[in-house]
Amino acid sequence: MVVEARPAHGERAVLDFYGSRLAEGDRVVISPDILCGKCYWCRHTFGYTWCDNIRSYGHLVSTDSPHLFGGWSELMYVYPESHVFKVPKDASDQVAVLAEPMAVTYALDIAKGHSALPNQGFASADTVVVYGVGPLGICNLIKAKLLGAGCIVAVDKSPYRLGFARDFGAAHALDAGSTTPAQRRELVLELTGGRGADVVVECAGVPSAVVEGIEMLRQGGTFVEEGHFVDVGEIPLNPHRHLCAKNIRLIGQMNLAYTGILPSMNLLAANRDRYDFDRLVTHSYDFTQSLAGLEKSMSPESMKVVIHA
Amino acid sequence: MVVEARPAHGERAVLDFYGSRLAEGDRVVISPDILCGKCYWCRHTFGYTWCDNIRSYGHLVSTDSPHLFGGWSELMYVYPESHVFKVPKDASDQVAVLAEPMAVTYALDIAKGHSALPNQGFASADTVVVYGVGPLGICNLIKAKLLGAGCIVAVDKSPYRLGFARDFGAAHALDAGSTTPAQRRELVLELTGGRGADVVVECAGVPSAVVEGIEMLRQGGTFVEEGHFVDVGEIPLNPHRHLCAKNIRLIGQMNLAYTGILPSMNLLAANRDRYDFDRLVTHSYDFTQSLAGLEKSMSPESMKVVIHA
Amino acid sequence: MVVEARPAHGERAVLDFYGSRLAEGDRVVISPDILCGKCYWCRHTFGYTWCDNIRSYGHLVSTDSPHLFGGWSELMYVYPESHVFKVPKDASDQVAVLAEPMAVTYALDIAKGHSALPNQGFASADTVVVYGVGPLGICNLIKAKLLGAGCIVAVDKSPYRLGFARDFGAAHALDAGSTTPAQRRELVLELTGGRGADVVVECAGVPSAVVEGIEMLRQGGTFVEEGHFVDVGEIPLNPHRHLCAKNIRLIGQMNLAYTGILPSMNLLAANRDRYDFDRLVTHSYDFTQSLAGLEKSMSPESMKVVIHA
Amino acid sequence: MVVEARPAHGERAVLDFYGSRLAEGDRVVISPDILCGKCYWCRHTFGYTWCDNIRSYGHLVSTDSPHLFGGWSELMYVYPESHVFKVPKDASDQVAVLAEPMAVTYALDIAKGHSALPNQGFASADTVVVYGVGPLGICNLIKAKLLGAGCIVAVDKSPYRLGFARDFGAAHALDAGSTTPAQRRELVLELTGGRGADVVVECAGVPSAVVEGIEMLRQGGTFVEEGHFVDVGEIPLNPHRHLCAKNIRLIGQMNLAYTGILPSMNLLAANRDRYDFDRLVTHSYDFTQSLAGLEKSMSPESMKVVIHA
Repeated sequence: MVVEARPAHGERAVLDFYGSRLAEGDRVVISPDILCGKCYWCRHTFGYTWCDNIRSYGHLVSTDSPHLFGGWSELMYVYPESHVFKVPKDASDQVAVLAEPMAVTYALDIAKGHSALPNQGFASADTVVVYGVGPLGICNLIKAKLLGAGCIVAVDKSPYRLGFARDFGAAHALDAGSTTPAQRRELVLELTGGRGADVVVECAGVPSAVVEGIEMLRQGGTFVEEGHFVDVGEIPLNPHRHLCAKNIRLIGQMNLAYTGILPSMNLLAANRDRYDFDRLVTHSYDFTQSLAGLEKSMSPESMKVVIHA
Repeated sequence: MVVEARPAHGERAVLDFYGSRLAEGDRVVISPDILCGKCYWCRHTFGYTWCDNIRSYGHLVSTDSPHLFGGWSELMYVYPESHVFKVPKDASDQVAVLAEPMAVTYALDIAKGHSALPNQGFASADTVVVYGVGPLGICNLIKAKLLGAGCIVAVDKSPYRLGFARDFGAAHALDAGSTTPAQRRELVLELTGGRGADVVVECAGVPSAVVEGIEMLRQGGTFVEEGHFVDVGEIPLNPHRHLCAKNIRLIGQMNLAYTGILPSMNLLAANRDRYDFDRLVTHSYDFTQSLAGLEKSMSPESMKVVIHA
Repeated sequence: MVVEARPAHGERAVLDFYGSRLAEGDRVVISPDILCGKCYWCRHTFGYTWCDNIRSYGHLVSTDSPHLFGGWSELMYVYPESHVFKVPKDASDQVAVLAEPMAVTYALDIAKGHSALPNQGFASADTVVVYGVGPLGICNLIKAKLLGAGCIVAVDKSPYRLGFARDFGAAHALDAGSTTPAQRRELVLELTGGRGADVVVECAGVPSAVVEGIEMLRQGGTFVEEGHFVDVGEIPLNPHRHLCAKNIRLIGQMNLAYTGILPSMNLLAANRDRYDFDRLVTHSYDFTQSLAGLEKSMSPESMKVVIHA
Repeated sequence: MVVEARPAHGERAVLDFYGSRLAEGDRVVISPDILCGKCYWCRHTFGYTWCDNIRSYGHLVSTDSPHLFGGWSELMYVYPESHVFKVPKDASDQVAVLAEPMAVTYALDIAKGHSALPNQGFASADTVVVYGVGPLGICNLIKAKLLGAGCIVAVDKSPYRLGFARDFGAAHALDAGSTTPAQRRELVLELTGGRGADVVVECAGVPSAVVEGIEMLRQGGTFVEEGHFVDVGEIPLNPHRHLCAKNIRLIGQMNLAYTGILPSMNLLAANRDRYDFDRLVTHSYDFTQSLAGLEKSMSPESMKVVIHA
C-alpha cells in the first residue's frame, strides 16, 4: 500500500524541496504523493497530504505518458511538483529507504506536543506498547526510543520481527501467537503499577488489536492508530468504557507528513552510533525480481525489502 | 450522575482551595469529588479526578456518620480534604451553579492547546457541532463560543433546549426529531466547503451520535466525547474509516477538572455583559420538593434545575 | 509601518488563496507580503512570512513596472503569487480592514497552545495587560477577549484610545500620562492576589514598556512582544530577575501569520452581535487626501484610518 | 547553589511521593524543596516549586531543631511533607544523583510541547547549542540527545568538560577560550544553512552568553535560560532585533520540576546501554572532607561531585 520512496540517482539536475539545485549523482528521497498545492488542505495544513487532488506514484497508471512512475525500474519520471529531498551525506542508503515509513511516525511527535499537558501525550520515560513491528511498527518503536520512551513493549506474531524489536530498544517482545491478550495485559499492568501503558501505537492493522490496545491503555493514555490504512472491517467499541471513562486521547494517522522526511533521515543519522539502522533493510532485489521481492515483503521473515535498479 | 456542586452558605469558617479563610456567609462551590492526594494519579495529574481512592458527595452513603453528604438539605457536611472554591463577587448564584458542568468543558481547553498544531485541535473561528444541549452540552456550546468558535451547530431533540442553544451562540439549531442524519451532515458539509466540522462535541450520550459525529468531522478534526458517562452499549466502529483514514483526534473526557472551577466562574462573570447566564437555571425547587426537581431535570423542558435549602 | 491590506474590488477574476475563482466585484484582502514559496522558511514554516526573498506591497518601489503596487490608488497590481483572501459575506468592509492587524495577534493563539501546560500560556479567565491600544493593540485586546480572557487592563497615553479599550472589553484603562509605573503595577498586583498578570502584550513599541511589562508579569507568565517592529534602541535586562527567576515565557511576533487572515474575518463576523467592530475604522480618506490620512493615523485621536479609492 | 538531592538510606519507613511504603535500605532521592501545598502556586501549578512558603534543605538553618537538614552528614532529617522518590532498581546511585539537575531540564520537555507548532519549539533532529556544560549543562545536552536532537554544539571554557560533551553526544565542542563569538556563530550558521540554531540552552550563567545565544538563534528559534539562577548583572537587549524581529520563543527556567525526578531516573536507566552515565560522577568525598569536595565542584576539572556519608 505504502509507495516506496527509494533513493534514486537523478538523471538530471532538479530542485530539492528546500530549493537547492541537485547535482547528478545526488541521492534523493521522493515523497510518494504529488499535491496540488492550491486546495484548502494544501493551503491550511502543514506537512500533511490531505490534498483534494492527490496523486501518488504507486497509484499512477504506467500506461499514461511518460510511463515511468514506479521505483521498480532503471529510470523514473519525477513530476516537477513532487517533493524531492536530498539525502544527507551522513545518512546511508538504508536510512534513506526508511525515511518514508519514519515520516509516518509524526503522530508520535504530535503526542510529544500533547505531553506538555499534565500526564497526557507522550512524556519522558513513558511506557509505550507497539502492536505489529513490521517496517512501520519498528519505525514507531525506534522513534519512541529516540524521543525518550522508558519501557517499550512490542507485540507481533513473527519471532523474526520480535528479534528486531528487542535489538532496537524493546524491553519486552511478546509473541502474539504464544501469549493471550490477558497475559499481555497482565504484563503491561505489572510494568506500570497496575495502571496500563501511557502510549499504545497500533501498527498491526488487525481490528482486535484496537480493542486490546485501548483496554491496555491507562486512564488518560494516548492511543495512536496507524495500522488500518486499508479497510479490514469493524470493531465493537463501547463509548463509555473505551472513550469517555478512559479519558482517552486518540490520534489517527494515515499516510506520512512530508515535512518529516528530512528530519527523519537526520534523526537516524544522528543516532547511527547507537543503532545499526542499516540492518533493517533485510532483503534487496534487482528490479527484474520484483515479484520475489514483493512476496518476501509480505513474509514475516522480512523487515524492509528493497527493490533496486 | 453528575453530583451537583451547589453554592452553599458555610456554617463556619473553612479554608478555600487556594488557601484563604472563608467568612461566614461566603458563597462557595464544592467540588463533588474528595481525592486522596497521595496516589499516583493525584501526584501525577493536574486538576483531574483520576484518584484511586475517589469518594464523591453524590455517592457517599448518608447512613454513614456524619450523614449530611448531600446538597438537598439545609446543612451539608464538608470533609476537610474537599476542594472548596469561593464564589467571586461578580459571579451570580446561577453562574456558581454552572461552574461544575462548565469545568467538564476543560476538554475544549485541551483542544485549544492542540490548535497550536497546524489545522488541528480547536482553532479561532472553527466550525463546532454540539450533540445534546442539556446543561452539559450548553456549557460546551458557551465555552466554544467564549474561546473563539466561528459557526456553531447544535443538535438536540428538544425544541426547548435548541432555543437556548440559539440564544447562546448557535448559528444553527437542528431538531434531531425532524431532521435525518443525512440532512444534518449535508448542512455541516455545506457550511464548511464540503469538508466537515472542525470540532464535534458529543454530550448526548447516545451511541449513534458517536458514529454520526465522527462521520460529520473533517479530515484531522477533533472529536470530544463527554456524553457517555454511563454505559449504554456498544457501537460498531471502523478503524480504517473512522480513525486512521480520518486522521481523527479524539479526546475522551469524564468528570471535571477541578482546576477549572474557579476559572469557569471568572470566565462567565467576565462575559455577563454579553449573555444572560442566569437564565440557564430554569427551575428551582425547595429541598422538600427534591423528587419533583429530579423529575424536572430529566425533562427536555428544563435546562439547569436547582434544589435549594 | 504595517502595510495596509485593504479590501479591493478586483478588476478581473483571480484565484483566491484557497483555490476558488473570484468574480468581478468580490471584495478581497491581500496579504501585504509576497513569498517565494521555495526557500527553507516557506517550506518549513506554516503561515509565517519568514521568507528569504520576501517582497511587500508597501515596500515595492512604484518606479518599477507595472507601477501600481500600493493601496492608495484607484487600481492596484496584484502579483499572481500573492495571497488573496475573499472577504466573507457576513464581514463588513471595516472588519476586512482589520483582518491584517488581527492576523498579527496569532501570538495569542500560540499562547493558547501553551496554555495546555499547567499554569502557563494563556488560559481561560486569565488576567491580560495590553500596552498600547492603537490599531494593533486594540486587535490584541479584542482577540484576548474573544479567546476567553478574564480581566483585561489597557495602558496608553491617549484617552481617546483608552475609551475604545473600555468599549471593547478592558475592565481597566490606565492613562500612561497620569499614572506612574508603580501605580500601574500596584493595580495589577491587587487584581491578581499579589501575583502579577498572566499575560502581557506589548504593542506600544516603547522600550521602557518591555521592562515594566515583564516586571508586572507573574511567575511563569507569558510576555508577548509585538510592538517593536522598528529599532528604537536598547533596554537593560537582568537575565536572573527578568528571565530565569521569573520563569518567563516570551513570544516575539513580527509581521502577521497569513493563515490568520481568513479566520480573523470569520471570528469578528461571528461576534458582530457582541461588538460594533465597524466603529474601529474611525477615519476614512479619499486617496487624493492620503497625506492627511497618514497624519491622522499618527494622531492619538484616531484608531484605524482608511485611505480609499 | 543547587541543593544536592542525594540518594539516602532511610533510617525508618517513610512514604514515597507516589504513596508506597519504603523499606529500610531503599534508596531515595529527596526533592530539595519543601512546599506548603496550599498556596496559589501549589494549587495551580503542576510540578513547579513556585510555592509562596518554600523552604529548601540547602537553605534551612542547622541551628534550628532537629538540626540535621543537610546531605553532608551521616543522618538527615526529612520533613514529612518532603517529596521523596524511591530510586528504581535499574538506576545506579550515580543516576540517582543526576536526577535533580536532570529535573531542571524540564524546560526542554516544554519546548517539545511547543514543537507541535510548525517550525517552533524543539522538533526532531533540531540543531541545539548548549552554553556551559557543567553538571546542569551536560544534563541538558543529554536530555536534548535523548529527546531526539540532531546536531548538538557545546560551548565551554573547560576542555575537561568539553570532553564529556563530546562523549555524551555533542558533534561540536567549542572552547570559549580559544574561539571568538564570531567564529562560534559562523560555525552554527554553516551547520544550519545560514539560519542559526533551532534551540539554544544557556547554562553558563554568563550575561554575555545570553546576547550571543540569542544572536545565534534562527528566526523563530527557542532560547532556554537556565543558567542565571543568581544575579550577576544586566545585559543590554534590543527589543526589536532580539525579541520582536527574531520571533523569539524564550523559556526561563529556575529550579526543578519535582515531577521530573522519577522520569529522569527512568529515562537515564532506559538508556544505560547507550551511555555510561555513571562516569558523570567524577569525584566523591567522605562528608568529613566536604570543603575539599566543595572546592572541587567549583573547579573546571570536575563534573558531578558527590559528598557521601
